[in-house]
Amino acid sequence: MEEGKEISEPKVESEAHQVSEGTETSEKKEDIVTPFNISAGDTGVDYDKLVAQFGCQYVVPEHVAQFEAITGRKAHHLLRRGIYFAHRDLDMILTRAREGKPWYLYTGRGPSSAALHLGHLIPFIFNKWLQDVFDVPICIQITDDEKYLYRPELSFDDVQGFARENIRDIIACGFDINKTFIFKDTDYIKQLYPNFIKMQKHITLNQIFGCFGFDGSDNVGKFAYPPLQAVPAFSNSFPHLFGTRTDIPCLIPEAIDQDPYFRMTRDVAPRIQYLKPAVLHAKFFPALQGLNTKMSASDENSAIYLTDTPDMIEKKIKSYAFSGGGRSLKEHREKGANLSVDVPFQYLSFFMEDDERLEEIRVKYGSGEMLTSEVKKDLITLLQNLVAEHQRKRAEVTDEIIDEFMRPRPLNIRL
Amino acid sequence: MEEGKEISEPKVESEAHQVSEGTETSEKKEDIVTPFNISAGDTGVDYDKLVAQFGCQYVVPEHVAQFEAITGRKAHHLLRRGIYFAHRDLDMILTRAREGKPWYLYTGRGPSSAALHLGHLIPFIFNKWLQDVFDVPICIQITDDEKYLYRPELSFDDVQGFARENIRDIIACGFDINKTFIFKDTDYIKQLYPNFIKMQKHITLNQIFGCFGFDGSDNVGKFAYPPLQAVPAFSNSFPHLFGTRTDIPCLIPEAIDQDPYFRMTRDVAPRIQYLKPAVLHAKFFPALQGLNTKMSASDENSAIYLTDTPDMIEKKIKSYAFSGGGRSLKEHREKGANLSVDVPFQYLSFFMEDDERLEEIRVKYGSGEMLTSEVKKDLITLLQNLVAEHQRKRAEVTDEIIDEFMRPRPLNIRL
Repeated sequence: MEEGKEISEPKVESEAHQVSEGTETSEKKEDIVTPFNISAGDTGVDYDKLVAQFGCQYVVPEHVAQFEAITGRKAHHLLRRGIYFAHRDLDMILTRAREGKPWYLYTGRGPSSAALHLGHLIPFIFNKWLQDVFDVPICIQITDDEKYLYRPELSFDDVQGFARENIRDIIACGFDINKTFIFKDTDYIKQLYPNFIKMQKHITLNQIFGCFGFDGSDNVGKFAYPPLQAVPAFSNSFPHLFGTRTDIPCLIPEAIDQDPYFRMTRDVAPRIQYLKPAVLHAKFFPALQGLNTKMSASDENSAIYLTDTPDMIEKKIKSYAFSGGGRSLKEHREKGANLSVDVPFQYLSFFMEDDERLEEIRVKYGSGEMLTSEVKKDLITLLQNLVAEHQRKRAEVTDEIIDEFMRPRPLNIRL
Repeated sequence: MEEGKEISEPKVESEAHQVSEGTETSEKKEDIVTPFNISAGDTGVDYDKLVAQFGCQYVVPEHVAQFEAITGRKAHHLLRRGIYFAHRDLDMILTRAREGKPWYLYTGRGPSSAALHLGHLIPFIFNKWLQDVFDVPICIQITDDEKYLYRPELSFDDVQGFARENIRDIIACGFDINKTFIFKDTDYIKQLYPNFIKMQKHITLNQIFGCFGFDGSDNVGKFAYPPLQAVPAFSNSFPHLFGTRTDIPCLIPEAIDQDPYFRMTRDVAPRIQYLKPAVLHAKFFPALQGLNTKMSASDENSAIYLTDTPDMIEKKIKSYAFSGGGRSLKEHREKGANLSVDVPFQYLSFFMEDDERLEEIRVKYGSGEMLTSEVKKDLITLLQNLVAEHQRKRAEVTDEIIDEFMRPRPLNIRL
């Protein structure tokens, strides 16, 4: 698998682990990566350790080649650049795609805030691309129950409001209304509940402790919830799409912190006569301040929001985006930028579609020929356009369109 | 409160704790009474200890008098004879009844077997009487999810089948279709779910451990479920009956082993701005073999089933009903029967409506004038009639009637 690791992410983070800016390296703490807590050193999460610890597999160049061979389309840059970098059972999904057998996409969103940031956009951009090139249905779970249970400060009504706004953003990503079902747990619970209690019956409390690390003083809903995130991975949870069929697998593209949910799902699935879902893991999109955490919705300067104005985007990037450039112009010209910790370059890797321009920046900025301010200027323009375009599309998403996406109904899919 | 204890149950079990037949009394174990486990000595559960341990109150003669004053009807024999013997906040309900303010009844059934036994019938007989004399709505929860989660041997489909059959029996008890809503958790979960997660958010895992005594090797659904049994105690869980109102309290008549659910409910309710439910606790209906446990659906000779034939009823009572009579005719004529452990007499106390005849049996059997065989003969006739009548009524309950009872719809109730 190692060659895959080398090839899939050479330009973005390959040297990340050799760099330590501003901290002692002698006693590096273990990274913590769970759905509820991500904590790593300044150089970001050690993804190799995570893959070993979680027991998943690397995405290798052969996978990327297969995506292209099957779809006849160039692989998405998030895949080519090794941002979606690890998987479980991806080959099974690719085989089905090649053979024309049905499968579906499953992703989700926990509505913990009204406005999404750029990091939230990544899985939806990628899922929308997968939907387009494979022509498959997608089911999008809005976990309003989860956010209500896990966020002490949020009321039930708060979360309901966030859910509606988040769904508007998700639809604005361009999902095909004829192939997309968006459901909120509290709306759709009746259909989910039989599989929910089947999952719960086959997971002990100790297994929940082991996967998620809560303790006895946590509310009981936190322990009860995780099996619900497994349920949309089973095709008979969507009778209006798949009837009672249980033989249609799904692919779950997501940030790697969600892996515990689907390790649990894959562990239980065969015991309740269901298929294991396949997963495709992304690396984290970094906060403006650096690679050591995911962005935080509670610190508005840690992220670019999809509601930000062009001026706000410019100001945030200029003021907060962590630079890997030299400390002086002289040092920068001599040594170049450390791209593995440079936030503007990382952001471009996630969002700039133009491979040639990105490569040019990589070479020139890495060598010191380009300055941070020049790279930031490229990024500001790119993100101002991206966010403006998102806002334009979002304004077109009416309440009627939202209701239609959320209506349990047959979709235009091949079974 | 002690006078209430003395007056409400003098004839049935007042001397129960002085008797010990066939066991050593020197080291009496503590009774265990939870919704999942009931274990007591041969003389049955020590209800005084239970009332003290649970922290509930005795039903006193003044309560019985109030029932009669408010309704203008003679109190039900299950109340007069001290079988419904303990409560929480009963006075609040009686005050509302006197003032003509709305309240409702809430009871339920866990569908763990297709056939109900006589013990299962008690709460429905009593609730139906309460519905009649107070003219109030009743909501009946069928906890199919609970039984699926707690019974390893039962499949989801098993429980669905049991639920339907049990509902047929419940309806046969004579509930008013215009004032009764019966719901199965898996059917009605969408309406219950918001209050379910509100309850879950306000109960820690440790509190569930404390109330119900599971351990970490139990499935997580067992921990998740108890808050769902609280939810029907909140009037806004039934929008088709009470709209969004949260100011309508309920009374929950039930066997005392269910108290942990409603201790928990009453603890959390004020913290989520809901009313505490009132409860009215019954003593356990004994197994044929004696007073030391509830009847068990897994031992068919431990109970009279509502599906039993007249011959089966006769045979079970003759063969299995534990007698408190003397060991020889001579001893019986001299000392009389020990009524506190005598199952035929206990059964008559639960089911014989005729006070005078019951008192006659108490005196004559207690003195040795009547023999066990004579008392059993009375009981056999009574139960053959009762069961035959139930079977007749049950045969009239069509699928359409079941569906109508279960349809969320406005009822004919005063608000």
